[in-house]
Amino acid sequence: MIRAAIVGATGYTGAELVRLLTRHREVELVGLTSRQYADQPYTTVYPHLSGQVDLNCQTQDIDAVTDAADVLFLALPHGLSVPWVAACVGKGKKVVDLGADFRLRRAAVYEQWYRVTHEAPELLAEAVYGLPELKRERIRTARIVANPGCYPTASLLSVAPLCGQGIVREDRLIIDAKSGASGAGRNANVGNLYGEVNENVKAYNVAKHRHNPEIEQEVAERAGLDPDAMAITFTPHLMPMTRGILATVYADLKEGLRPSAEEVRDLYRQFYANEPFIHVMDEGVWPQTKWSYGSNHAFIGLTVEGRTGRIIITTAIDNLVKGASGQAIQNMNLLFGLPETTGLEAAGIYP
Amino acid sequence: MIRAAIVGATGYTGAELVRLLTRHREVELVGLTSRQYADQPYTTVYPHLSGQVDLNCQTQDIDAVTDAADVLFLALPHGLSVPWVAACVGKGKKVVDLGADFRLRRAAVYEQWYRVTHEAPELLAEAVYGLPELKRERIRTARIVANPGCYPTASLLSVAPLCGQGIVREDRLIIDAKSGASGAGRNANVGNLYGEVNENVKAYNVAKHRHNPEIEQEVAERAGLDPDAMAITFTPHLMPMTRGILATVYADLKEGLRPSAEEVRDLYRQFYANEPFIHVMDEGVWPQTKWSYGSNHAFIGLTVEGRTGRIIITTAIDNLVKGASGQAIQNMNLLFGLPETTGLEAAGIYP
Amino acid sequence: MIRAAIVGATGYTGAELVRLLTRHREVELVGLTSRQYADQPYTTVYPHLSGQVDLNCQTQDIDAVTDAADVLFLALPHGLSVPWVAACVGKGKKVVDLGADFRLRRAAVYEQWYRVTHEAPELLAEAVYGLPELKRERIRTARIVANPGCYPTASLLSVAPLCGQGIVREDRLIIDAKSGASGAGRNANVGNLYGEVNENVKAYNVAKHRHNPEIEQEVAERAGLDPDAMAITFTPHLMPMTRGILATVYADLKEGLRPSAEEVRDLYRQFYANEPFIHVMDEGVWPQTKWSYGSNHAFIGLTVEGRTGRIIITTAIDNLVKGASGQAIQNMNLLFGLPETTGLEAAGIYP
Amino acid sequence: MIRAAIVGATGYTGAELVRLLTRHREVELVGLTSRQYADQPYTTVYPHLSGQVDLNCQTQDIDAVTDAADVLFLALPHGLSVPWVAACVGKGKKVVDLGADFRLRRAAVYEQWYRVTHEAPELLAEAVYGLPELKRERIRTARIVANPGCYPTASLLSVAPLCGQGIVREDRLIIDAKSGASGAGRNANVGNLYGEVNENVKAYNVAKHRHNPEIEQEVAERAGLDPDAMAITFTPHLMPMTRGILATVYADLKEGLRPSAEEVRDLYRQFYANEPFIHVMDEGVWPQTKWSYGSNHAFIGLTVEGRTGRIIITTAIDNLVKGASGQAIQNMNLLFGLPETTGLEAAGIYP
Repeated sequence: MIRAAIVGATGYTGAELVRLLTRHREVELVGLTSRQYADQPYTTVYPHLSGQVDLNCQTQDIDAVTDAADVLFLALPHGLSVPWVAACVGKGKKVVDLGADFRLRRAAVYEQWYRVTHEAPELLAEAVYGLPELKRERIRTARIVANPGCYPTASLLSVAPLCGQGIVREDRLIIDAKSGASGAGRNANVGNLYGEVNENVKAYNVAKHRHNPEIEQEVAERAGLDPDAMAITFTPHLMPMTRGILATVYADLKEGLRPSAEEVRDLYRQFYANEPFIHVMDEGVWPQTKWSYGSNHAFIGLTVEGRTGRIIITTAIDNLVKGASGQAIQNMNLLFGLPETTGLEAAGIYP
Repeated sequence: MIRAAIVGATGYTGAELVRLLTRHREVELVGLTSRQYADQPYTTVYPHLSGQVDLNCQTQDIDAVTDAADVLFLALPHGLSVPWVAACVGKGKKVVDLGADFRLRRAAVYEQWYRVTHEAPELLAEAVYGLPELKRERIRTARIVANPGCYPTASLLSVAPLCGQGIVREDRLIIDAKSGASGAGRNANVGNLYGEVNENVKAYNVAKHRHNPEIEQEVAERAGLDPDAMAITFTPHLMPMTRGILATVYADLKEGLRPSAEEVRDLYRQFYANEPFIHVMDEGVWPQTKWSYGSNHAFIGLTVEGRTGRIIITTAIDNLVKGASGQAIQNMNLLFGLPETTGLEAAGIYP
Repeated sequence: MIRAAIVGATGYTGAELVRLLTRHREVELVGLTSRQYADQPYTTVYPHLSGQVDLNCQTQDIDAVTDAADVLFLALPHGLSVPWVAACVGKGKKVVDLGADFRLRRAAVYEQWYRVTHEAPELLAEAVYGLPELKRERIRTARIVANPGCYPTASLLSVAPLCGQGIVREDRLIIDAKSGASGAGRNANVGNLYGEVNENVKAYNVAKHRHNPEIEQEVAERAGLDPDAMAITFTPHLMPMTRGILATVYADLKEGLRPSAEEVRDLYRQFYANEPFIHVMDEGVWPQTKWSYGSNHAFIGLTVEGRTGRIIITTAIDNLVKGASGQAIQNMNLLFGLPETTGLEAAGIYP
Repeated sequence: MIRAAIVGATGYTGAELVRLLTRHREVELVGLTSRQYADQPYTTVYPHLSGQVDLNCQTQDIDAVTDAADVLFLALPHGLSVPWVAACVGKGKKVVDLGADFRLRRAAVYEQWYRVTHEAPELLAEAVYGLPELKRERIRTARIVANPGCYPTASLLSVAPLCGQGIVREDRLIIDAKSGASGAGRNANVGNLYGEVNENVKAYNVAKHRHNPEIEQEVAERAGLDPDAMAITFTPHLMPMTRGILATVYADLKEGLRPSAEEVRDLYRQFYANEPFIHVMDEGVWPQTKWSYGSNHAFIGLTVEGRTGRIIITTAIDNLVKGASGQAIQNMNLLFGLPETTGLEAAGIYP
């Protein structure tokens, strides 16, 4: 059994890790840290897990937590992961960081968008960006996995098959993303109150969301482009729902190209042919976020708009599963040589 | 492997059976019938199950479907189950009927509330009311299991520990129930449109809901009362949510009795001590329907209101799982001698 | 023009007062106080009122605010109204208190349920409980109007026509109430986050909600009963919606009585015959909270359940309008001799 | 008093017209037609309007309805407006058509997108596209007003100030629009059930929505471009909410241009300087659909993304008010020489 600990276990991604790991047949949960709920039974914080887990929350003692586990899942606000990651590396433990600190390979870009100094830039080089569908082999041998952001997961799955194919302007993508409110975590602030989110839609952090450079970094890498020359627009919107992200991507076809929708769809189907979690839909079938509710599955729809010379792609995921905790477990499975779907087989819950 | 067929597979309870049975390690799905979608791949109707099931919908050929299966799940509107149940009995197959036709033991009561003639009253006697927490042993050896209604499941779990204890007036219960919209099924009618249900609450079928006699029948049986002398009020309400039932039950203490909340809670905890799906909460902790979202678990909260001489109990379930398809599988597990939790281990999905 | 000031103008009831008063043809808004947003334009806090109001929020200077106005609306947490009310009385200004401090006529009851000492019990005697349909004449000449709680408004409208008629046990009512999340105000706490409220229903404060004694006080008064002998059960539930309360009331018929539903309905229709805001529905028509969305209207449905000997009544209101700010304006209209519907004519918004 | 009739009064836009017109001080409602509910009191269909209107629904007798009214509002499915419009023209009555039949000036374009033959192409020339902020003067003297679609209203308000200014590529706009479910009307179909829409987001009619040519027509006109050379992408999405549209528009700056956000904002503020219903927000403030809930107001946010060379604009409206019935009344006010805001003064309802 793999002994796993979750650092920051009482946020929504922490709770989702607990839900999934308690049913993972190769994992034993050995630590759940929480500053706010230390020493309380985990199930008093999350009663829906009654009978699934009988650990108490514990304080965030880096050495004790790390020593007791084979792998750590870090579910912390940005800026707080470094000492944990350093401890894992030092003690030879695997670590999957669900936060943002190790996603951007260049400390300067991190500091520009997050406006804090990166405390361990020397570790960035060995962190692997944990999107298994794109970097499976590198993840298998990694020590540090930087679990992708929820929006980048949906965005990159949307465009990866096109990148470097000479079909679209990868540097000029427009990504209009819609997310449920759980993406903001379990933090008490007025903007996330029911009365403010319900029956309401808005854009936010327009032209300055921190997932923008993450998307550009990975698209540039796959497309073989200069990351500094990327001009991808990413606009997040808050939806009146709890879970789910739908990314709608607009990609301009290169001058003179007009592939058919079926040609493009074939490209996607080949690219994702062996992917257990990725489903490319038929023409005219557009993914619904609820199809992925509670599951690690992603659904991709696409068409070619000949009239305008654009490919339009929409991808639906559950932001807390494929966009966070499920993907983290998928990465853990790779790190430990398990079948990638272990513990993640469940379908979404519909309706 | 148990070969299972679902009759009426494209309604919401049918889809939920498919979701759960495709992950049940002892079951092979061999038939999915649908009049509306015959010959279409099941996953075109429910894409969230892509990769989980590759059957086509088939027509409702009673002999063919029954012959191919060891157990049938009937998810049909009331009045349509009889020929299927008769075929199962004739061919020695087990049947779990999720509809209403075999829940009421007296044909006259059925006919009074459902306003149709029962076509096979002779079969009623051997149907077992499939609430495993109350009738486990009888279910094990049944041929026909009448799966309880969603509201009766929540209501009966709320009051069973009190019945026959001499503490409350079982015949005078008031049950105020709140249900998500999926309880009405996937039928296109104006009253179930998003615009009509969202941001809206109403009572419906007040004083005449068909689950009322079902609740009275089972409470009377457990309490040793005359079913014709029951005067239980049951008021269903439609909530702006998809899944979940919360039953709020008001039970008058018998004259002169004032047990403490902890005494009553102990009664509940003893009653449900070995039940894997039932969770009795501490004083002051009131169940939330979302705790059970997508799961077979039920959560019970209660207190004694000394000032008024009443016990107040609330029970939360997922109407499509413990209230329908999950419970049907729990019954199937009993019918086939499997551990009762097989295929139903998952926790609810929160948030 | 009546000069009106709102104290605590940036909560939800404050915002609703602003929305309604800016369209009230006899009112000029002269003051909006807010500790949190002092000196900021009101429309930066509530942009939906852009173009409707151009005041800045101001600090809570009791003398200055009171001197400038003819009437004060107090939208403050309980315990904070006393100095404002005292100032109004001292300066001869009218005051409508939307908080709880002046609703309970007996300081001891207030202190028992609210667990704070009442600072001005001597003022309680002259506060009038501001439910116009029940106390219109007393309100006209009041100096202090205690605006009812949202739940008591729906509850009392449900049962007032029955009180003192010798038909039901007024002292044994059960009120099962369902409220939207805006009832909890615009306070940042985890329990009111979208992810916690959406797709979820729960009971809360069972057997100890502070609106319970308020309901008992008014029912006792109308029924001519001893307030200390009341045993009304009141159970509030949180709904996944922003606005609206539905109160479902269960009233036991007195021994031997079995009035017809139409007899009881006639009683209601006579009682509310001249009420512009109260609508008694036909048999079988059950109110929906959305009918009252954004309006001061209340909808009442009822039936007699002969089988159990109970009357069941449901009443739907908008908790922020008839349950708070609209009713406060209705009271103000009475205080100033205006037609009672002034500024409140609008219908609900549906769907 | 203007005598107004509504043809197709029991759909959602019809109900919204009734709600608004019953409070319009210059209008008397004289006819409400409905095939489905003929001879029934209107308030049995829409009880939220109890006390506001006492008409019965009537059959769709063109002559009788038209003779009795000064203005007709047509709220019919596309293809059904022609005989009503012809009757109005013949009898000298004004008509505001909320349907699609008179929005596209070229019958061939209508027939291409709607796949039906236009029955009266000769009337198209005199229909005025009723977006008052753009065509106020032409509307004043029109006989036929073609009320814009909900999506085009939000889209055109988003981009009108930029059109013809030489700043952006008007022909290459991308419009990603999000709409509440009421936009689909009160039609019973599975896709609009609560269980299908709630907690769910999807794109639909991608690259083929009928509002696309309407947007292109009006943008081309304002920008002085060839309508056949337009290549605007319009992607509608269904949101889990009842009301509201948010249009997110991406406009590429022309080669070499990099105006500041404030320069662009000034352009918008000048353009809409005297518009009572249009609110241009400050930098960093992004409109929320709920700000416009139930009201005729529109809120516009924008920024310039220098990094990519794009302007991003979001506009929020209530699809049933500014996107349909409110705008229709605004047009009626213009047709009859009334102040444009008459009957439309109310702010949105928040929260």
